Amino acid sequence: MESKSYMVQMNGNGVHSNSVHSFNINGDIYSAKMKIHKKRWNIRASEMSKNTLNPIRAIVDGMKLSPNPDKAMIALSIGDPTVFGNLPTDEKVLQAMKDAMDSHKYNGYAPSVGYQKSREAVANFYCSPEAPLEADDVILTSGCSQAIELAISVLCNPGNNILVPCPGFSLYKTLAVSLGIEIKHYNLLPEKSWEIDLQNLESLIDEKTACLVVNNPSNPCGSVYSKEHLQDILAVASRHCIPILADEIYGDMVFPEHTFYSMAPLTNDVPILSCGGLAKRWLVPGWRMGWILIHDRNQAFGQEIREGLVKLSQRILGACTIVQGALEAILNSTPQEFYQDTIGFLKSNSEICFSALSSIPGLNPVRPSGAMYLMVGIEMENFPEFENDVDFTEHLVTEQSVFCLPATAFEYPNYFRIVVTVPEDMMVEACSRIREFCQLHYRPCNQESNDLDQ
Amino acid sequence: MESKSYMVQMNGNGVHSNSVHSFNINGDIYSAKMKIHKKRWNIRASEMSKNTLNPIRAIVDGMKLSPNPDKAMIALSIGDPTVFGNLPTDEKVLQAMKDAMDSHKYNGYAPSVGYQKSREAVANFYCSPEAPLEADDVILTSGCSQAIELAISVLCNPGNNILVPCPGFSLYKTLAVSLGIEIKHYNLLPEKSWEIDLQNLESLIDEKTACLVVNNPSNPCGSVYSKEHLQDILAVASRHCIPILADEIYGDMVFPEHTFYSMAPLTNDVPILSCGGLAKRWLVPGWRMGWILIHDRNQAFGQEIREGLVKLSQRILGACTIVQGALEAILNSTPQEFYQDTIGFLKSNSEICFSALSSIPGLNPVRPSGAMYLMVGIEMENFPEFENDVDFTEHLVTEQSVFCLPATAFEYPNYFRIVVTVPEDMMVEACSRIREFCQLHYRPCNQESNDLDQ
Repeated sequence: MESKSYMVQMNGNGVHSNSVHSFNINGDIYSAKMKIHKKRWNIRASEMSKNTLNPIRAIVDGMKLSPNPDKAMIALSIGDPTVFGNLPTDEKVLQAMKDAMDSHKYNGYAPSVGYQKSREAVANFYCSPEAPLEADDVILTSGCSQAIELAISVLCNPGNNILVPCPGFSLYKTLAVSLGIEIKHYNLLPEKSWEIDLQNLESLIDEKTACLVVNNPSNPCGSVYSKEHLQDILAVASRHCIPILADEIYGDMVFPEHTFYSMAPLTNDVPILSCGGLAKRWLVPGWRMGWILIHDRNQAFGQEIREGLVKLSQRILGACTIVQGALEAILNSTPQEFYQDTIGFLKSNSEICFSALSSIPGLNPVRPSGAMYLMVGIEMENFPEFENDVDFTEHLVTEQSVFCLPATAFEYPNYFRIVVTVPEDMMVEACSRIREFCQLHYRPCNQESNDLDQ
Repeated sequence: MESKSYMVQMNGNGVHSNSVHSFNINGDIYSAKMKIHKKRWNIRASEMSKNTLNPIRAIVDGMKLSPNPDKAMIALSIGDPTVFGNLPTDEKVLQAMKDAMDSHKYNGYAPSVGYQKSREAVANFYCSPEAPLEADDVILTSGCSQAIELAISVLCNPGNNILVPCPGFSLYKTLAVSLGIEIKHYNLLPEKSWEIDLQNLESLIDEKTACLVVNNPSNPCGSVYSKEHLQDILAVASRHCIPILADEIYGDMVFPEHTFYSMAPLTNDVPILSCGGLAKRWLVPGWRMGWILIHDRNQAFGQEIREGLVKLSQRILGACTIVQGALEAILNSTPQEFYQDTIGFLKSNSEICFSALSSIPGLNPVRPSGAMYLMVGIEMENFPEFENDVDFTEHLVTEQSVFCLPATAFEYPNYFRIVVTVPEDMMVEACSRIREFCQLHYRPCNQESNDLDQ
């Protein structure tokens, strides 16, 4: 009997012949075994893994990136402020981590939603009279990515759709599609400093819309929305009763003449999951310390969404306990000068880049107001040698060893994104190389003369 | 027109009346608006969040845990070796973390599968001639929980089933059910030191079986399988071509007279995803440093599973970079004495507990060989006052302020689990209180006299 067959395989080396009798008919092997489930290994990766698509990787991996050997490579493509070493985190942040380690108190499991004290610290840090927060309104996560994953996972079922910005950060799509949730892109308007095209946004809403994602300040745009624009967005959400996932990971990272408005204090009725973390403002993206702030003054989420978030947090638990243990000190001890210095540098570098590129024929940079990015439009008709933004940026690497991410990675062709965290001298050099590249390839569009030629 | 209606709501407070005209027919409100998607907030938590069930929480939260005010509480329920402070991690481990911090090299993003150098360190640490490993065979994850999540997610589609031990760690079920994957429990045999009932195991396999989960050493059993038993398990997997998820988080945590055999070196053909991490052996479960070791000498996983794991790792990225940066030093510098001291303590405490409980009428402890747990059978017929293990352990708290996890949490009624990481004096005291409790409630079963009475 097959069910006993393991009994005779004491050496355990998987000999099949004992319980399987095979014979040969017309060259095919047939088995006389009563119950064979599989004849050979046939392991396929799951649909979910196949549907987990990273557009940035897909595009960058498909590019032929062969830098000019005579010029040192300058990567303006990496959304990581730490790579060049010019933007270290504050000493107080590192000290808080060491103190957490030395306390020996933060090596064990934390609750899946995070230590109560750390949640309270985040609540106090982001609390406002208009949008009060308590520890229970905070879920600590393994980076802002997990915050976004939990928020989407709790609000949406397969078959639902979510509204995401175009151009926009690719993770929303990566996560949603892998969960069987549809993506609808709403347009941002470069001519209005990347404000949302509200008419377009509203036209996309249907009965399957489970969530509106608003990313402010924005990756890849570097835009910062006015209070009035945020109120207009909230009005749309309110009218259609759509909750908001506010990706505010770049919150407070705005240039001095601008003001960052978190969405939650601007509404009484629209429920908001605000996602944030230490990554950008404290310049430690690798530490994977993120959070969700639950704003629900109108009780539209109710207990159900809160409980759903707690349940989902139990799947893999959240952030490293050492960082959790350091969190209160990080939030409360980091000096204002540190934030100001970071912002000052980002603004100055943005200005250098924006001015340099503004004067290059064929390029249309959009002036940023915050975050650490700047989008540049390419007048493709003036660069007839290149097919599109991917082709353009690929050749920029080949000739000038400067790599900018083609905005096709953000579903926005014929733009490229520049990360403004590189050291100033590299930024100046990169802009000068971009100028050289454009001057070489720019062809004025002379529609009249073309017409005459024909 | 509705599509323009946001234009008239400059104050953004979500006034509805402008675009909605309602009228009343037979007491119901009907709307004349052309396109109304929702009239009121109706946000429901997703099915996935509702299906993310933690049996331990469900059971513990449902218990009435009111300790005896005259006795200090002793929790033998918490699977966290750090809670009592008697099992600190090694100083070398903490030093490695500080060095990683001071290097300022580990604040930025790591690749989603982890730093190459850290993956290499794990590969070297677990490499064997029979089951060689290279850096590319290692995926670093946010704790062993994420390792298990990625392994299940890449191997299974909704509608598949996985085979999990009973009694067994509840996370396999939590993760699988939330992903629409069915769970089939195979029996462990307490009378054979919790070996797998191979006949039962084999009978559960069908064409939908995507993965066999083997947890060795085991939570909650503290069992350690012999080489021969592991080979028998592998023979079943080989015969049916089922890949194995080997949860080896307690790997090497076995008592001196026993030997831990990792599964991978024992097979040439069965592909194995071995999940592990720093949590238990290095006594830092909160740090969330886990890994998957991909063993695939027969090319049964092929590129597809590897690529699937890489893709899934990009959803939320993995472990904290400081811990990743410290990993090589942690693995290579932790002194052997540290491991031995931990094991020595666990064995000694297990023995104390096992001997004490063995002599208590009505209890049947099963002697463990490793990990940090011990299962105790309750002869429920001798404790007629109590309905089941949950009732029994609840009253143990009420009367003796000792809390043991009822094994119903592991789908195994009429047992309870003891965690042996508590300080020795607490263990002694807890056992003495359990004795008192049992002596008070034990009723000998006298079947003959009962029969005569009737």
